[in-house]
Amino acid sequence: MTNTQVTLVQIDNYGPWTVTPEPRREVDLQTLQSRLYADLSQLVGDRGGYVFFTRFDNMIAVTNGLDMDDHAVIQESVGNRYPVSISLSVATGQSPAAALSDATERLQAAGSAQDKSRREILEGRAIESDYRTDEDVQIAHFDVIDATGEYTDQLNAFDSFIEIEQGYAALMKYMRQENDALSFFVGGDNIIATCPDLSADEYEAAIDHVTAVADVDLRVGVGIGRNAHNAGMDAKHALEHARADDTKVEFLR
Amino acid sequence: MTNTQVTLVQIDNYGPWTVTPEPRREVDLQTLQSRLYADLSQLVGDRGGYVFFTRFDNMIAVTNGLDMDDHAVIQESVGNRYPVSISLSVATGQSPAAALSDATERLQAAGSAQDKSRREILEGRAIESDYRTDEDVQIAHFDVIDATGEYTDQLNAFDSFIEIEQGYAALMKYMRQENDALSFFVGGDNIIATCPDLSADEYEAAIDHVTAVADVDLRVGVGIGRNAHNAGMDAKHALEHARADDTKVEFLR
Amino acid sequence: MTNTQVTLVQIDNYGPWTVTPEPRREVDLQTLQSRLYADLSQLVGDRGGYVFFTRFDNMIAVTNGLDMDDHAVIQESVGNRYPVSISLSVATGQSPAAALSDATERLQAAGSAQDKSRREILEGRAIESDYRTDEDVQIAHFDVIDATGEYTDQLNAFDSFIEIEQGYAALMKYMRQENDALSFFVGGDNIIATCPDLSADEYEAAIDHVTAVADVDLRVGVGIGRNAHNAGMDAKHALEHARADDTKVEFLR
Amino acid sequence: MTNTQVTLVQIDNYGPWTVTPEPRREVDLQTLQSRLYADLSQLVGDRGGYVFFTRFDNMIAVTNGLDMDDHAVIQESVGNRYPVSISLSVATGQSPAAALSDATERLQAAGSAQDKSRREILEGRAIESDYRTDEDVQIAHFDVIDATGEYTDQLNAFDSFIEIEQGYAALMKYMRQENDALSFFVGGDNIIATCPDLSADEYEAAIDHVTAVADVDLRVGVGIGRNAHNAGMDAKHALEHARADDTKVEFLR
Ligand SMILES: Nc1nc2c(ncn2[C@@H]2O[C@H](COP(=O)(O)OP(=O)(O)OP(=O)(O)O)[C@@H](O)[C@H]2O)c(=O)[nH]1
Ligand SMILES: Nc1nc2c(ncn2[C@@H]2O[C@H](COP(=O)(O)OP(=O)(O)OP(=O)(O)O)[C@@H](O)[C@H]2O)c(=O)[nH]1
Ligand SMILES: Nc1nc2c(ncn2[C@@H]2O[C@H](COP(=O)(O)OP(=O)(O)OP(=O)(O)O)[C@@H](O)[C@H]2O)c(=O)[nH]1
Ligand SMILES: Nc1nc2c(ncn2[C@@H]2O[C@H](COP(=O)(O)OP(=O)(O)OP(=O)(O)O)[C@@H](O)[C@H]2O)c(=O)[nH]1
Ligand SMILES: [Ca+2]
Ligand SMILES: [Ca+2]
Ligand SMILES: [Ca+2]
Ligand SMILES: [Ca+2]
Repeated sequence: MTNTQVTLVQIDNYGPWTVTPEPRREVDLQTLQSRLYADLSQLVGDRGGYVFFTRFDNMIAVTNGLDMDDHAVIQESVGNRYPVSISLSVATGQSPAAALSDATERLQAAGSAQDKSRREILEGRAIESDYRTDEDVQIAHFDVIDATGEYTDQLNAFDSFIEIEQGYAALMKYMRQENDALSFFVGGDNIIATCPDLSADEYEAAIDHVTAVADVDLRVGVGIGRNAHNAGMDAKHALEHARADDTKVEFLR
Repeated sequence: MTNTQVTLVQIDNYGPWTVTPEPRREVDLQTLQSRLYADLSQLVGDRGGYVFFTRFDNMIAVTNGLDMDDHAVIQESVGNRYPVSISLSVATGQSPAAALSDATERLQAAGSAQDKSRREILEGRAIESDYRTDEDVQIAHFDVIDATGEYTDQLNAFDSFIEIEQGYAALMKYMRQENDALSFFVGGDNIIATCPDLSADEYEAAIDHVTAVADVDLRVGVGIGRNAHNAGMDAKHALEHARADDTKVEFLR
Repeated sequence: MTNTQVTLVQIDNYGPWTVTPEPRREVDLQTLQSRLYADLSQLVGDRGGYVFFTRFDNMIAVTNGLDMDDHAVIQESVGNRYPVSISLSVATGQSPAAALSDATERLQAAGSAQDKSRREILEGRAIESDYRTDEDVQIAHFDVIDATGEYTDQLNAFDSFIEIEQGYAALMKYMRQENDALSFFVGGDNIIATCPDLSADEYEAAIDHVTAVADVDLRVGVGIGRNAHNAGMDAKHALEHARADDTKVEFLR
Repeated sequence: MTNTQVTLVQIDNYGPWTVTPEPRREVDLQTLQSRLYADLSQLVGDRGGYVFFTRFDNMIAVTNGLDMDDHAVIQESVGNRYPVSISLSVATGQSPAAALSDATERLQAAGSAQDKSRREILEGRAIESDYRTDEDVQIAHFDVIDATGEYTDQLNAFDSFIEIEQGYAALMKYMRQENDALSFFVGGDNIIATCPDLSADEYEAAIDHVTAVADVDLRVGVGIGRNAHNAGMDAKHALEHARADDTKVEFLR
């Protein structure tokens, strides 16, 4: 049974900051956002977690293995290096969606995302180490079959992107509604989902749904582990097996 | 009349690199991709252009004002600092979509995105400075009305994101099909589009379409300029006017 | 008694790379070097260690608390994100200088810094966790007294720098020869040294030497801890006490 | 005749910031400083200039070709992305030292480096484009002969560094006092100097001085150009010639 620890990362009062005293140069905002994301990826990744860029102003992380002190260090380190600060809210649940709902509610209770006086909130609870197991995290790594031959080398670069993006839009919604899983586009033609305990059939149904709705053909490798990194590496290896054997769903444990 | 210069940026043979000799750590890939994007934002932005992260392995830039030498320096600088190299293809057209198609075809003609021997292609033509005008670029900055009150402070963070993402999926497709415009999610609840010469009515129709299809309410500020930065800053100011006056479409020239 | 674990970080075959196929743009080299240093600071710092930029192509780190697996992850992460790779050699000793000599010899034995075929060496041994104590690391944080009033606000910026630099040159040599300590300029008017078990008198003698030889007035805060971060933070607090009480040498335990 | 444009970059009120509300983690300060330097290298480098890290809190740049608007954009871009701001002061002179003195005085006149209310000063004047020539900048690239064989592969890494550092301390002082030139350590065994119009004999005298005082053997390549990048690339090529012909001083024009 999975027990996903999710952290919601929210830049404090970012909307108003972007236009104060007047609109800031877009390239600087883009640089700021993508570097903050890169830094969080490293800070969380060094401790075995994954961060997803999501909206950039609100990022979602799988943080099994990080305790509240780790979160505090990360928050402080960002505050030491950026003109903006971040709030962090941590929660756990059998499904990632339930965990995230819990984390979001805690943060909302502390104040609005655009409340000037709500700064550097650190809320919630991490899993006690005694309660952690080797099956806490399930990561699914989805990939478009032959994206290069089907899209990248055929269509113009935006039309390729539309295909992949529509595939993503279909998958994210389905996985959320049917499975309480959270799916994130991670670049190229890849989508990584943090999932509850799902079966091969449930993954196959998701893939079929995306083919039906968006006409995009996916395959998926699934890994299970103590933290996001372990589960994610297994998912990648499983995906390599799926590629080698031309199958649609592969698990690695 | 617009005359958008578009550059397609493609990481050379990136798919195979990510799994050679075996799958690389996802956090390192994420860090690499987002920093490469940040660096390109600065390199292109310093010369008045905009880059959009798109798929990260294929990025699309509006590069009016950058000649082929500028592109060569950017390509060299990336090669000097990253373990991967990039190919660049430049083209111009009255519509951004036409320009991008042209740029994509040139690059495809030089070899597949996953061709081991296709490296650091620099293709295409930039607009001669004598032919540049102050109306070459039209940038539209779309923003969700009260995203904080409607979504961020209400729903869980993923469900907020689903709403914004479905809004984006609807807008990108509509703008491409109806207007030959290219629309990019830039974080938060913001979408920036590079457009041909569109009227206020055409923007209003796009906004209405997104409300109808995805139930997301947008407004837009539009700017016109010699390069992406000039047009984009005007678009931001126009959006501030739209916010102040509670209108849906504002132009600034 | 201290037991400093030192890691030598060396960029593999970097000299030849900087001029192949022809000299690379200096700004790109500077960017590469300083970002590599920043990343190592974070990667090592996340685990409680300190890295010093030293020559940039050869960096020296205090790594108590990092085992060989941590070193392997850091090496891999750099290899995933940079066009150059690094070798790492780890050793321990009662004096930092002895530890570094040992680490250097191991790496030299594996091949020249400019040997094309010597790549990503990972050598040496980390302290077993059972043998670690709370007094393994002694960090001294030296600071010029009133650098702003004496130099920065008085002399031209280069002449200020000459003063500080001559102070550093004197201190680094003295501390190495008299105390087997390694001292590093860390920006501004600050020097951080990793030291064996030194007394207040020995620090005072060092400060007197620098005043005599280079006419630069220093004070120092000293901290002792399980790793560089713990000792270093105590050193900073000790320095604040020295500032408050206008003393020259302060210890914090 | 050279006409070097020098910019002094100073982080505003940085000393107090590093210890407010209490001492900040050293690894974060190191990361902040080295990334700020990397970003400035790119921002100035994209416009043909060179920045030297110097003390990190006070950096010195050769900025021929950047006008005051360029400086303003760079200042704004740093302000948009860092928790600290920078002041910039620009001056020109036949000798780099004279230019820097002028720039420093202007900034000192605007307030102390640690004056809370002195923020984002932008002072001075850039050379009008009509007055720029192809001989405005002279860059000398010094390099230790066979540093790898003499030091890196022989001594321990700190003792190697002491040798190079003492060589640098000797050169920087000599070049400043005898020639009004500003010399900067740029990593490895390399020193780059921005110089007035010096002859081969004057460079030879400097090299002889360093051999006599610090027992370190240097050679130097010299380039002359419209901006730092042009002069610097020629200096690098000249140095390659000096290596090939085993000479001590080479000019390239
Ligand atoms: N984030 C992430 N992206 C990846 C990874 N592997 C590949 N990609 C991306 O996916 C893109 C397409 O690569 P592939 O999936 O190998 O190419 P393909 O043509 O679809 O081939 P097959 O998937 O083998 O059918 C690359 O350009 C990368 O952007 C990965 O492990 N993580
Ligand atoms: N890329 C980019 N993102 C922005 C910009 N301005 C705001 N954002 C993003 O948009 C998010 C929401 O901010 P706002 O749009 O100001 O908030 P809102 O609640 O929707 O309020 P209104 O738009 O004023 O109705 C922020 O968190 C940012 O992520 C901008 O100029 N560029
Ligand atoms: N690396 C590092 N540099 C610091 C730290 N504190 C200060 N600095 C640097 O030192 C410079 C000078 O600051 P201070 O030492 O506070 O200034 P001062 O005028 O010498 O004043 P006193 O030291 O209080 O006599 C700053 O600009 C920073 O570059 C620190 O903790 N770490
Ligand atoms: N900043 C900078 N550093 C360089 C450059 N070229 C070399 N280096 C540094 O210098 C170090 C030593 O390399 P070399 O100078 O090639 O090696 P060497 O053993 O001294 O050999 P020779 O100089 O050829 O006698 C490298 O590790 C780099 O750190 C350069 O163009 N710029
Ligand atoms: Ca694929
Ligand atoms: Ca909005
Ligand atoms: Ca001081
Ligand atoms: Ca050399």
